Amino acid sequence: MTITITAFEWSPDGGKGLARDTRVRWALEEVGQPYEVRPVSFAAMKESAHLALHPFGQIPTYEEGDLALFETGGIVLHIGERYGGLLPDDANARARAITWMFAAVNTVEPPILELVIAKLIEGDKPWRAERLPLVEDRIRGRLNQLSARLGDADWLDGAFSAGDLMMVSVLLRLRPSGILDEYPDIAAYVARGEARPAYKRAFDAQSALYNGKPPTG
Amino acid sequence: MTITITAFEWSPDGGKGLARDTRVRWALEEVGQPYEVRPVSFAAMKESAHLALHPFGQIPTYEEGDLALFETGGIVLHIGERYGGLLPDDANARARAITWMFAAVNTVEPPILELVIAKLIEGDKPWRAERLPLVEDRIRGRLNQLSARLGDADWLDGAFSAGDLMMVSVLLRLRPSGILDEYPDIAAYVARGEARPAYKRAFDAQSALYNGKPPTG
Repeated sequence: MTITITAFEWSPDGGKGLARDTRVRWALEEVGQPYEVRPVSFAAMKESAHLALHPFGQIPTYEEGDLALFETGGIVLHIGERYGGLLPDDANARARAITWMFAAVNTVEPPILELVIAKLIEGDKPWRAERLPLVEDRIRGRLNQLSARLGDADWLDGAFSAGDLMMVSVLLRLRPSGILDEYPDIAAYVARGEARPAYKRAFDAQSALYNGKPPTG
Repeated sequence: MTITITAFEWSPDGGKGLARDTRVRWALEEVGQPYEVRPVSFAAMKESAHLALHPFGQIPTYEEGDLALFETGGIVLHIGERYGGLLPDDANARARAITWMFAAVNTVEPPILELVIAKLIEGDKPWRAERLPLVEDRIRGRLNQLSARLGDADWLDGAFSAGDLMMVSVLLRLRPSGILDEYPDIAAYVARGEARPAYKRAFDAQSALYNGKPPTG
């Protein structure tokens, strides 16, 4: 069955992999499933045809036969459950990997997204300079805890899993801020994710969409 | 196998159900599984014994034999996969219910949490009055979209599922703000969740922990 995902027609980050379709591309590359990409304009994202697929008017969406999904966590988990390679076979290890997926999007990502909002959407507000350090410290609080848990391990819980895929994807959004560089162990963890061949193929494919070049991976 | 969860030893909300253990209690009540509760003090939450269970030093945690989980989304999904009553049998409907779980915690909850932070943690900052309406409008943006999707339906996608359990739990945090009252359809959706016998039992059990009364459910 053909898998079709949506992505930005024009990428706000110029193809640096920060748009959320990269997470889904990465997951599909990890499990070795081909997929098609349907670019969507910002105007079309708010129209009824796209809202039927994604009630919050965002990308990516995922279509596979009769199934339509939105929300990267739900899509990546579906890919992990349907195809091998992203979730452990052992039931307990599988439950822990899924808990890390939720930790990525519900505990680590919110303050990181808030920093993006503070800089972009509230970037012209008079409180910007005084408030930014508060938001950054919220992020550091999470990174201190994540660093303590990661320790000397390569991945969060045994072998690479969908939990790492989501966590690395969330942490990548921090790179422009410089905060990632304050945590060499977490920066190395993120780099291990980026070094995976599946990530490179995903990154190159999304980058090519915006640069008009075929993927080099 | 005995299921043990952790909860606040002292509840910041006085037992009004806003602490996150309520979500896990609710899920366990829906599937009819008994559980034990181990209260944890704020000091103990930051100590190594608890951090081994929950790397971010929060509640709830979930222990069941050899399995230890944190993060409500991961716990509720595990309960849904292990016991019947929270996730549809049909594979596609199941994937959609899980996507709604992620939408609750990653798309709808972040601006709601930001409102809590804006009022409590940044409540004494000079930008409070000017910034609050911006955060509230971010929430309204999500609620408008959620309302459009919900339409006349009782639940988000067919029968009640773990997706509704998480969404209602997230929306409940809005009640003190008054924003929920601006959306009669969403308020009615939340009320349908609260009216479920399993929710009432969960609410009463967590409330009794702080009021020294036995559950009345």
